[in-house]
Amino acid sequence: MGNKIPVGILAATGAVGQRFVQHLVDHPWFEITALTGSVRTAGRPYGEGVNWLLEGDPPQSIADMIVQPTEPDLDAQVLFSALPTAQAREMEAQFAVAGYPVLTNASPYRMDPYVPLLIPEVNADHSDLIPYQQEAYGWSGYIVANANCSTTSIVLPMKVLHEAYGLESAVVVTMQAISGAGYPGVASLDIMDNIVPHIGGEDGKLESEPRKLCGRFTDGRIDMADFVVSAQANRVPVIDGHLGSVSVKLREKATVEQAIALFDNWQPPEICLELPSMPEPVLIYRPEENRPQPRLDRDAGNGLAWTVGKVRECPVNDLRFLSITHNTLRGAASGSVLNAELLVLQGFIQEPVSIELAA
Amino acid sequence: MGNKIPVGILAATGAVGQRFVQHLVDHPWFEITALTGSVRTAGRPYGEGVNWLLEGDPPQSIADMIVQPTEPDLDAQVLFSALPTAQAREMEAQFAVAGYPVLTNASPYRMDPYVPLLIPEVNADHSDLIPYQQEAYGWSGYIVANANCSTTSIVLPMKVLHEAYGLESAVVVTMQAISGAGYPGVASLDIMDNIVPHIGGEDGKLESEPRKLCGRFTDGRIDMADFVVSAQANRVPVIDGHLGSVSVKLREKATVEQAIALFDNWQPPEICLELPSMPEPVLIYRPEENRPQPRLDRDAGNGLAWTVGKVRECPVNDLRFLSITHNTLRGAASGSVLNAELLVLQGFIQEPVSIELAA
Amino acid sequence: MGNKIPVGILAATGAVGQRFVQHLVDHPWFEITALTGSVRTAGRPYGEGVNWLLEGDPPQSIADMIVQPTEPDLDAQVLFSALPTAQAREMEAQFAVAGYPVLTNASPYRMDPYVPLLIPEVNADHSDLIPYQQEAYGWSGYIVANANCSTTSIVLPMKVLHEAYGLESAVVVTMQAISGAGYPGVASLDIMDNIVPHIGGEDGKLESEPRKLCGRFTDGRIDMADFVVSAQANRVPVIDGHLGSVSVKLREKATVEQAIALFDNWQPPEICLELPSMPEPVLIYRPEENRPQPRLDRDAGNGLAWTVGKVRECPVNDLRFLSITHNTLRGAASGSVLNAELLVLQGFIQEPVSIELAA
Amino acid sequence: MGNKIPVGILAATGAVGQRFVQHLVDHPWFEITALTGSVRTAGRPYGEGVNWLLEGDPPQSIADMIVQPTEPDLDAQVLFSALPTAQAREMEAQFAVAGYPVLTNASPYRMDPYVPLLIPEVNADHSDLIPYQQEAYGWSGYIVANANCSTTSIVLPMKVLHEAYGLESAVVVTMQAISGAGYPGVASLDIMDNIVPHIGGEDGKLESEPRKLCGRFTDGRIDMADFVVSAQANRVPVIDGHLGSVSVKLREKATVEQAIALFDNWQPPEICLELPSMPEPVLIYRPEENRPQPRLDRDAGNGLAWTVGKVRECPVNDLRFLSITHNTLRGAASGSVLNAELLVLQGFIQEPVSIELAA
Repeated sequence: MGNKIPVGILAATGAVGQRFVQHLVDHPWFEITALTGSVRTAGRPYGEGVNWLLEGDPPQSIADMIVQPTEPDLDAQVLFSALPTAQAREMEAQFAVAGYPVLTNASPYRMDPYVPLLIPEVNADHSDLIPYQQEAYGWSGYIVANANCSTTSIVLPMKVLHEAYGLESAVVVTMQAISGAGYPGVASLDIMDNIVPHIGGEDGKLESEPRKLCGRFTDGRIDMADFVVSAQANRVPVIDGHLGSVSVKLREKATVEQAIALFDNWQPPEICLELPSMPEPVLIYRPEENRPQPRLDRDAGNGLAWTVGKVRECPVNDLRFLSITHNTLRGAASGSVLNAELLVLQGFIQEPVSIELAA
Repeated sequence: MGNKIPVGILAATGAVGQRFVQHLVDHPWFEITALTGSVRTAGRPYGEGVNWLLEGDPPQSIADMIVQPTEPDLDAQVLFSALPTAQAREMEAQFAVAGYPVLTNASPYRMDPYVPLLIPEVNADHSDLIPYQQEAYGWSGYIVANANCSTTSIVLPMKVLHEAYGLESAVVVTMQAISGAGYPGVASLDIMDNIVPHIGGEDGKLESEPRKLCGRFTDGRIDMADFVVSAQANRVPVIDGHLGSVSVKLREKATVEQAIALFDNWQPPEICLELPSMPEPVLIYRPEENRPQPRLDRDAGNGLAWTVGKVRECPVNDLRFLSITHNTLRGAASGSVLNAELLVLQGFIQEPVSIELAA
Repeated sequence: MGNKIPVGILAATGAVGQRFVQHLVDHPWFEITALTGSVRTAGRPYGEGVNWLLEGDPPQSIADMIVQPTEPDLDAQVLFSALPTAQAREMEAQFAVAGYPVLTNASPYRMDPYVPLLIPEVNADHSDLIPYQQEAYGWSGYIVANANCSTTSIVLPMKVLHEAYGLESAVVVTMQAISGAGYPGVASLDIMDNIVPHIGGEDGKLESEPRKLCGRFTDGRIDMADFVVSAQANRVPVIDGHLGSVSVKLREKATVEQAIALFDNWQPPEICLELPSMPEPVLIYRPEENRPQPRLDRDAGNGLAWTVGKVRECPVNDLRFLSITHNTLRGAASGSVLNAELLVLQGFIQEPVSIELAA
Repeated sequence: MGNKIPVGILAATGAVGQRFVQHLVDHPWFEITALTGSVRTAGRPYGEGVNWLLEGDPPQSIADMIVQPTEPDLDAQVLFSALPTAQAREMEAQFAVAGYPVLTNASPYRMDPYVPLLIPEVNADHSDLIPYQQEAYGWSGYIVANANCSTTSIVLPMKVLHEAYGLESAVVVTMQAISGAGYPGVASLDIMDNIVPHIGGEDGKLESEPRKLCGRFTDGRIDMADFVVSAQANRVPVIDGHLGSVSVKLREKATVEQAIALFDNWQPPEICLELPSMPEPVLIYRPEENRPQPRLDRDAGNGLAWTVGKVRECPVNDLRFLSITHNTLRGAASGSVLNAELLVLQGFIQEPVSIELAA
């Protein structure tokens, strides 16, 4: 146990923070050594301060840990941040100044030109931005962000098509789960027997983040991918799982059969196969005409896989497909854990002498 | 009462049949004089045979009527059909042969080149196909169809834009209510906490029907409108109300402000204003960024109005908007009642001597 | 219009306040002349400050009224209170001191020995407490409370049985709608695909309020009815309508047939029949084994009627039945409006010279 | 693998049949060697004929097995039956005649005086009925039934109280999940935003089965427990998990504290601890005032544990509590698997020579 990498979770009592706890509590490489919370919860045992939203109870080993204030003197080598937006903007930079690698689920730094917006299967090499970030900002630590949960749900199949045929444009409509809004989040009176066709800021994230994720790292910077996205996000009465309906125009034409074969046979870069949390397969193509569905497919690969289906010709553009991921697992906490695992393999996080890099 | 036009309802005990009963029971021009049902219900009072799905009980005056078999000897001048697809294909033609005008909610004849696919606000002049239909098929009666409920939900704003600027293409994603599948319809185990991204045949209807509805009547035929539609229909856990998210390319460019003004000021053709069931306004533009919503907007105009919102520029195409109607009212039974009202005014249905054509 | 009784609504922008607006806007006896709100909404037009949760938009005539602070200088003869608990406790007495009759939906004064807890069909004569209240507290106005929404849902059939046979005890389990918790109220993450078997304070209200409602007014006080209630309240994923499952022990035995006949033939006291909002019938007995159901029965009598069903022998006690009302209509705002109508007829609210007491 | 006990699943493609597959596929003692289905599915590979309702796909090893007709020449030593009621009544006896032990989830034989209605934690000794059954009916095999899913959800805490203090009566109201009705089961139009206060036959099962389960085996028969149950079952919009609200009268008085201590410290009979599927703990007491909740507690102990909470004094009877189990796991398929495990330990099912009775 002593040879694992000690990690801290910022804002560990919230909905995403709980998912970090859940994923990290038995992690083969990481060990939770610090938890932070608000003034309401700081100083109390985690098990007392948390309003545990997941099944069962908080893990016993974590329940007894004392929640600390979110300040840069944490006994941890790496930090996972579930901070709310405003606090993330302010505090994450302070932690980077103080030397911590910060793996954040928050949005403020995602589109920062020096911050890698990272999904291992999509753009593992974007971590090469890190030294440029440290130099530009004078930080000894650094910030690496995972993508918005709705972006995550559709970006892997977009990337796969972009790499093979060149994306020109994508029209995206998402149907997003209530857990994406945190807790208490969406009022039941707003969403029961209803759809809310608006999620603040989400359309913009869906229209910009995929271009950075699919962009190219060159000369210390990311060149945005040269496609255009139109996005319209909807909140639907589903507990977990963001579903995206996508119509794409390609630069080089491809048949439905080619696209299906591409998805069906796709393998992530080799380094991904060594990440202990990586599911196998990570991209699942389902041939049924009524899949993917949130309740049936969100937990595929322990909630870390993409499920793609309904790949069809588009009468207006070239191809259409649906894609889903679990928004609070792959699309949030676990996305950052996978990023941390990648950074260990890439050497951006130093492992203790005796850690053995095997799951 | 004796001077109203006597009407019959085919398949009156089903989900759509009940909506016909509800709309027609106190209608100023029509009087229900015949109800048909399956072998299970025929011969029994309507109130006994029906599994009433709407609030309260069946109207008392209708509950005592005896359900008849669906055969062409009904004591009625006009028929409204809620027949299931296979039976509609067979029986509606028989009723037309026997001289009845058949106002149908079923799909088999919708795309028939001689059958008007009619929505008064969209294409009131398509009823001029009727004499050509009668001649071509040798019928003394005729068939007029209302559009599919999902087509209905989006076609009026499409038509308004098409008329003003010329539609080139539309990418449509719908989120459709469970009541659209009839009763028992969607299993609760399939849809609770879930989305089913497939409705049999619906994408095809959404891709073809708007082109006929927005087509031009010339020389005894309908010229399909020359735009292309891509549609992807989803079943969502909402009871009533089909919501469509639409991105359109226009032949002539228009700003968001122009489109909003167009929707906000739009008036239906004058003849529509005389239809007793026509709501005022029939096209509602809502400026809030989170509207329209099924639960809040489906009942606008007694469930007969369209509500349009989120009119925005599209980064990929030209404009985007959302549109909703109530699927079992405007999108089904009441759509056909409005068609019948139009046909009365146009002289395709003869009124009794003493009826006064005022609501 | 000028001859209607001018009324004010305290906390008019909240969920219950909106129901007051909805019921009173076209009331034959009352006219809304004042609306109060929080510091956030006071000073602004109602239509701007309110987050309208009901279908459509706020009534136009009300939307333009300026919201006032909740202070006792309102231009109104009668006040309807939708104040939250803490504020109700403090302010309602101040309004009574200032001479206003306060018809409140709040809980603080419900069990006060001098405050009538009033439901016209149950205990119309309890309003005779009013002069004793005024004398005891030195108020020129007074407070009259309606019952808790869950109590309301079951108390009329309890009263009917109590009057006929004498209730000895009742074991009650309720399944209560989310709208009972106000807005934002219940988080969707708490209630979707779930039951929450706890509503703060509700069991106690259900166990005490029926005893006061069914009590006897004598000598300036209410003698509590001498039965005992056991209640367990559950929050369920239903939008409107509280359903109660009740098992009762009676002092005098009664058969199921007798109880059904009692419910089926029951008429409210004559004075109730003159209340303009009173539905006819107000107590509906349904014989189907699967009724009442919230979605099908909550709107009976415009949401003001009780629907009772499943009247059966109880193997443990004597009889069992289910009862439902609409919690934000009969169980909240409209309950108080009916109380006000009763108080007008009883002379506790003075009508303007020219009002005509007919609906 | 060859030394496991070969078992067959009758009606393996239905909702409960799939749960049998799920539980048995990796079972340490049993190996699935036969699957039966209807004429529609018989003769085809299981993976083709099944409409898999659970997450992911059917287990690969099972998907390739050919479904057989439900006839008594199956290559299996023990049969698990998920047959529908009518077919179960006819076929299960035939299988018992043919020498198979039949572990059934169906209802027809549950109240048969010679058939053990078995829950290991409640009445493990009732299996001693088996030889009497065989003699009475002349069967070389036998039938053992698990209880109805709603009975299961409440009977363990009832038994625990009965044993300690003697139950005199119980008033039970259940809130039952849609999965209890099988597939397609409950129509979404019936249950969304609604409660259906009726489940055919369920109240009777809830009122009789607990008396048999808590009865005493003496002289080749079961003496029914001498308490009375009143039950009212409701269908609620919850996917899995039946919740029961129970008020009990005891013969010997007990305080809330005593009852809580009883639940908190309760241990099943020792033989239960050796069953490989038995969770630890199997009876969970939760002290929170808002627990148990279906979504949070149904999966406790892999869906095999009871969660009890809200233990309180009852103003009418003596004590009240809530209890929940997972209806398609503990309350159906897995209940029968646990029974089979018990019968192996008790010697009613012969193990192969080399099986090792350890999980």
